[in-house]
Amino acid sequence: MEKDFEYIELFEIYSELLTEKQRYLFSSHYLYDLSFGEIAEESGGSRQSVFDAIKKVKLKLTEYEKQLKIKSTKDQLAKLAETTVDKQTAKKIREIIEK
Amino acid sequence: MEKDFEYIELFEIYSELLTEKQRYLFSSHYLYDLSFGEIAEESGGSRQSVFDAIKKVKLKLTEYEKQLKIKSTKDQLAKLAETTVDKQTAKKIREIIEK
Repeated sequence: MEKDFEYIELFEIYSELLTEKQRYLFSSHYLYDLSFGEIAEESGGSRQSVFDAIKKVKLKLTEYEKQLKIKSTKDQLAKLAETTVDKQTAKKIREIIEK
Repeated sequence: MEKDFEYIELFEIYSELLTEKQRYLFSSHYLYDLSFGEIAEESGGSRQSVFDAIKKVKLKLTEYEKQLKIKSTKDQLAKLAETTVDKQTAKKIREIIEK
């Protein structure tokens, strides 16, 4: 579940690099909570092919993060904003990274 | 020239999303200063095909920035680090974005 949440965060960052089909599959399962079987029924594939395709999307997302590190950079900045005593700068950091 | 520098910055950020061939073509021209003709000679294509391929890489880089905004976010954070009075936080911001 913790892991799922991490993939959802990566999806929010990198979804534009995915194909439309990949976005559809990932969001059906992780955002709309459909089972692999339900997605298969809806999209006309097999349960196994849906499972494999979503697994591939998760690998892609992990790879993008490894290459571009947007989530890790934002996490570090969010932590800095939390701990810094300069509240105004903290607010500005948050505004920039939450855009 | 100003524009070239911007593409080089985008290339530094997004090069891992390009193919090996695209990286080779872009860096030959923009980092090693080879002409389209020289690259064509070296890679066995025509001058026009090299020109077109590099143009395509530049479009790709622009598209990645539009989708992911890493450069724009870093630019905003660098500016914040420059103007903030809290020097320690400024230093930490720089450390995070320059990694």
